Amino acid sequence: MERKFKYEVMKEIKERWSPRAFDEAPVEKDELMAVLEAASYAPSCFNEQPWRFIVADDENKLKRLRGILAPSNQEWANRAPVLILIASKKNFEHNNKNNKWHEFDAGTAWGFMALEAQRRGLITHAMGGFDKEKAYREFNISDEYDLITVVALGRYGDKSNLSKELQEREQPAARKGIDELILNV
Amino acid sequence: MERKFKYEVMKEIKERWSPRAFDEAPVEKDELMAVLEAASYAPSCFNEQPWRFIVADDENKLKRLRGILAPSNQEWANRAPVLILIASKKNFEHNNKNNKWHEFDAGTAWGFMALEAQRRGLITHAMGGFDKEKAYREFNISDEYDLITVVALGRYGDKSNLSKELQEREQPAARKGIDELILNV
Repeated sequence: MERKFKYEVMKEIKERWSPRAFDEAPVEKDELMAVLEAASYAPSCFNEQPWRFIVADDENKLKRLRGILAPSNQEWANRAPVLILIASKKNFEHNNKNNKWHEFDAGTAWGFMALEAQRRGLITHAMGGFDKEKAYREFNISDEYDLITVVALGRYGDKSNLSKELQEREQPAARKGIDELILNV
Repeated sequence: MERKFKYEVMKEIKERWSPRAFDEAPVEKDELMAVLEAASYAPSCFNEQPWRFIVADDENKLKRLRGILAPSNQEWANRAPVLILIASKKNFEHNNKNNKWHEFDAGTAWGFMALEAQRRGLITHAMGGFDKEKAYREFNISDEYDLITVVALGRYGDKSNLSKELQEREQPAARKGIDELILNV
């Protein structure tokens, strides 16, 4: 599917997509930290910053994080040198009441992360397919956090490592036209 | 509060914050559409693209959207030349089942929107404070959508139009350190 931009938009937005052909080479610590710092500057309701990260970039933690992924994701994401589980704090810190925007705000942080990674020549792919209950247990995470997605981070590798089916899907996905996104009210 | 970046990150992320001193001058249609197109290229679960926009950039629609804002937001956001209500489709299109990532994904689109606006010299400020029920009624929006936030979009204006209290808050907010965001598991 070809992407057709009608307007001039940021290079990182134009060029970013969600590949599966990860190279196994590690990501330098500074690159990883910069990407997380970028995420941390997302706006959020009451500047709550509900996003939290479980970061795996060594073999021990990677093994544990891979273990919670859906098999269909393990198939390709096991090669990613970094996996980041994005969690989000459900309640506000200032009053302990439910933060209705925690998922939305965590999504904004993920957007910042993805674009900063892109700027650095890194690729990202977020996966909804993981075992949430297993993740809570494996990492002993308190239920004050919601577990949203696991992000694979790394560099583009060899497409031929993917199954034939995944090779065929290894391309940027098209988008709805803007008209379809604007509700006419 | 001063922002201290430890790493080199994207200019747009470094410089973006959420001002309230909007200039009343209109935003060109092409700028607005480019910002929405940027949002539309966010990644989402199954490429669902759950984000929807109710866009007000003429006096009639602006009046209606201002009417749903909390008075504390009206105080400054009434000067913004564009208001965008971000809605999000709760169920997947392919199976009509609940999309647990719709808010997260809408947040990613908002992140892309905010950074593309920043790149174009536009400012944005998202507001959680609005009357959701009134918004459903006013715009006759189906409950298949969740209503998440109203974004003010425009250019930076004259700070002295703000109340003294808001003038004092008119600066970038600090962030938690990355260590506070990484859950040690």
